Amino acid sequence: MDMERNLTLLTDFYELTMGNGYLGSGLADTQCCFDLYFRKVPDNGGYAVVCGLEQAIEYLRNIRFSDDDIEYLRSKKIFSEEFLDYLKNFEFACDVYAIPEGTPVFPNEPLMIVKGPAIQAQFVETMLLLTINHQSLIATKAARIVKAADGRPVMEFGSRRAQGSDGAIYGARASYIAGCAGTACTISDKLMGTPAVGTMAHSWVQMFDSELDAFRAYAKQYPDGCLLLVDTYNVLHSGVPNAITVFNELKAAGHKSLGIRIDSGDITYLSKSARKMLDDAGFPDAKITVSNSLDEYIIADIIRQGACVDSFGVGERMITSKSEPVFGGVYKLTAVEKDGELVPRIKLSENTAKITTPCFKELWRFYDRDTGKAMADLLTVRGEEIDDSKELTIFDPDHPFKRKHLKNFTARKLLVQIFDKGKCIYKSPTATEIREYCRQQTDTLWDEVKRFENPHNYYVDLSQKLWNIKLDLLNRMSE
Amino acid sequence: MDMERNLTLLTDFYELTMGNGYLGSGLADTQCCFDLYFRKVPDNGGYAVVCGLEQAIEYLRNIRFSDDDIEYLRSKKIFSEEFLDYLKNFEFACDVYAIPEGTPVFPNEPLMIVKGPAIQAQFVETMLLLTINHQSLIATKAARIVKAADGRPVMEFGSRRAQGSDGAIYGARASYIAGCAGTACTISDKLMGTPAVGTMAHSWVQMFDSELDAFRAYAKQYPDGCLLLVDTYNVLHSGVPNAITVFNELKAAGHKSLGIRIDSGDITYLSKSARKMLDDAGFPDAKITVSNSLDEYIIADIIRQGACVDSFGVGERMITSKSEPVFGGVYKLTAVEKDGELVPRIKLSENTAKITTPCFKELWRFYDRDTGKAMADLLTVRGEEIDDSKELTIFDPDHPFKRKHLKNFTARKLLVQIFDKGKCIYKSPTATEIREYCRQQTDTLWDEVKRFENPHNYYVDLSQKLWNIKLDLLNRMSE
Repeated sequence: MDMERNLTLLTDFYELTMGNGYLGSGLADTQCCFDLYFRKVPDNGGYAVVCGLEQAIEYLRNIRFSDDDIEYLRSKKIFSEEFLDYLKNFEFACDVYAIPEGTPVFPNEPLMIVKGPAIQAQFVETMLLLTINHQSLIATKAARIVKAADGRPVMEFGSRRAQGSDGAIYGARASYIAGCAGTACTISDKLMGTPAVGTMAHSWVQMFDSELDAFRAYAKQYPDGCLLLVDTYNVLHSGVPNAITVFNELKAAGHKSLGIRIDSGDITYLSKSARKMLDDAGFPDAKITVSNSLDEYIIADIIRQGACVDSFGVGERMITSKSEPVFGGVYKLTAVEKDGELVPRIKLSENTAKITTPCFKELWRFYDRDTGKAMADLLTVRGEEIDDSKELTIFDPDHPFKRKHLKNFTARKLLVQIFDKGKCIYKSPTATEIREYCRQQTDTLWDEVKRFENPHNYYVDLSQKLWNIKLDLLNRMSE
Repeated sequence: MDMERNLTLLTDFYELTMGNGYLGSGLADTQCCFDLYFRKVPDNGGYAVVCGLEQAIEYLRNIRFSDDDIEYLRSKKIFSEEFLDYLKNFEFACDVYAIPEGTPVFPNEPLMIVKGPAIQAQFVETMLLLTINHQSLIATKAARIVKAADGRPVMEFGSRRAQGSDGAIYGARASYIAGCAGTACTISDKLMGTPAVGTMAHSWVQMFDSELDAFRAYAKQYPDGCLLLVDTYNVLHSGVPNAITVFNELKAAGHKSLGIRIDSGDITYLSKSARKMLDDAGFPDAKITVSNSLDEYIIADIIRQGACVDSFGVGERMITSKSEPVFGGVYKLTAVEKDGELVPRIKLSENTAKITTPCFKELWRFYDRDTGKAMADLLTVRGEEIDDSKELTIFDPDHPFKRKHLKNFTARKLLVQIFDKGKCIYKSPTATEIREYCRQQTDTLWDEVKRFENPHNYYVDLSQKLWNIKLDLLNRMSE
């Protein structure tokens, strides 16, 4: 397959020094449990959209150390032959649980849990974080931009400014899942069915002796659905009048034009003026697409000002999540096998937000039976049951006196098992299916959670049992 | 080769609609000329470091449309069979010129020039921009961070927060070229010789019953050059004392320890206190490495406060260039063949900074013969000669009355030919060689150009001939 690469060595070097060390210390096969989670929604948003699971699965299925890789590692002169043998015969044997892609998620929720031999669960850290961090970042940003466009289609145009090829390819995927209508990134369409779109650049217009020549040449090639870029020389004095000339010629020949694109200048003013010119010329159906350094704030602002825009092309500010280009997912040890049992582990920090929550966990989401809206999420020790036919009282782990009584709700487990002892037991939906699921799930969020400014803090609480275990560990550690 | 992928379709869809259109309009083989350049240095810096040429070359050498690709494009139902045939038999035939990687560069300089058949020179736009934009972004950021560290080694630790796999792999390359001492990204070391480094994560410490057990187990595996992470529980009350215990045990057994790493908390305070504890315990040579959301400003600040730090691990803020995650390279048509001659072309804009400079160009850098320092750069029409045995007067294109008289200088052409009619005639140096070249070239810049705040605006001027052509085109377009 065209895209197959051996990315096994895409790992922080310390995963290998630790692996070698676990083996040497007799811990290689000790079962342990890691949570992958994040602490803060980018852009101070109210929720994130988790994304990247399909590529994380691909990675996990394809871990193999080639002879080359082993030779390279041997050349570092710090790994035991026993360890290199282990890698040579590496067979993934972990259990993996994950929240399906496209689900709205919140800080401190395990997006993924890996449970298995220490050496393996440790090794996969870097690539799982990289994959989930990247696509969740872009999906979360794209969801904001799509929301700002308020029903108007948003096209992803950022490949040229993406941080590397995968940034473009999987950024297009993530933005599509979060609601974009299409992408300029052709290969993402071919590989994943994210619809590719695009017409012309300024160079097309410059390539001809005049703008009118360029428009006519384009219309000759693409007489139906002709979309013309009108800002190479001057939008209102040259671009739009020339477009109208060509639209009239197309109309006379029985073709229907699509519209124009404006890629610079004062979008609000230009789009209003262009709209009037197109309407007056008898083309009220001609669409106006705009692009040029757009993001959720600019889009919301130009709509508020009454700009006449039918669709948006969004580039660098979405494909890099420019305003906050990091999704800070972390991967923390939560439990270690001791005498055949998983014993909870904690990491302390002077920054209390960085203290981990121990245990192999389950994550629940509660939906109101009447409205279908998500009311709260709850982390429990795995094995705890929730009876959603009864009332349930939950509390805020940061402020345990803040309690909330839930009734008339259904409880759903958000984590799905993906690998069973190294065997993949999950089939990823298509990008289009995930996109639809994402839309449905985003609809279950209250508007207060989705707004940009001061969104409501969605509840992610701990069960009494989990809270007691955490408190107990904290007390013991600070003795 | 492990990393080979067919990225031919990683292109904006409009490159294909335009290609199909050029062919249909009889322009497919029309020679034309594109400049790849940028308009602004990220972070308001005084210079950028161009990077990514080796990967751009790899891309250009490997353009091939598989049967799959052709089938996919045919399914879009807008491309002519003639065009699909053209792609099937695609043979790259352009001339390509580029500034060697690692060179300090300035706004409006062509980092790359592509000259060839319209359909081809257009097609490669997306990937050339993506590749050069990404690595130049990271190299430029890394250069700032390395400068702030003032001689102390900087390690690249950001893979997990990179925007996709290539973001990690080639981000590590770019940061190494710009002066980082090593990277955590193992695969980059294997593929490109960027030295991989790493020891342990918090999970290593948590995996054992106590921190001391964990440190002892690590020291047993790595008795020489042992580096311990001391902030899992409490740096000064637990981490450093336990490290000292283990360092004493190692010393008694005849081993030399490397030091400690601090990954959280008040770096200045903790590093000073840890330094004193290590010194008092008889380990003045033990190094202190720090990490945790560092960038050039924080590094400069903690050094200014007297922190005792020997080396820095820098993650997300370098690998994503967090403060400004976009290198805004553009790719603009500058000339088109007409009756067998290249005719200059221009793109206007109401934003004067966005007006392009026409012509197939040459770029010169002038160095002072005495100091070796770079004095100014000059863009000329290709074919113009500079006689550096004579005095030369240059002027600022934005303010033509600002003139500068150069004497006692040597002139160097910055652009090197990379492809000759599609054949690659350039051999990329190794990353380590580029790193050394980058260091030398950065040394030719005045400190005033390199400072972070209000750097000096380096001169990038136009020759009289080029300026006249641009003015003439501007005047004709606004008639």
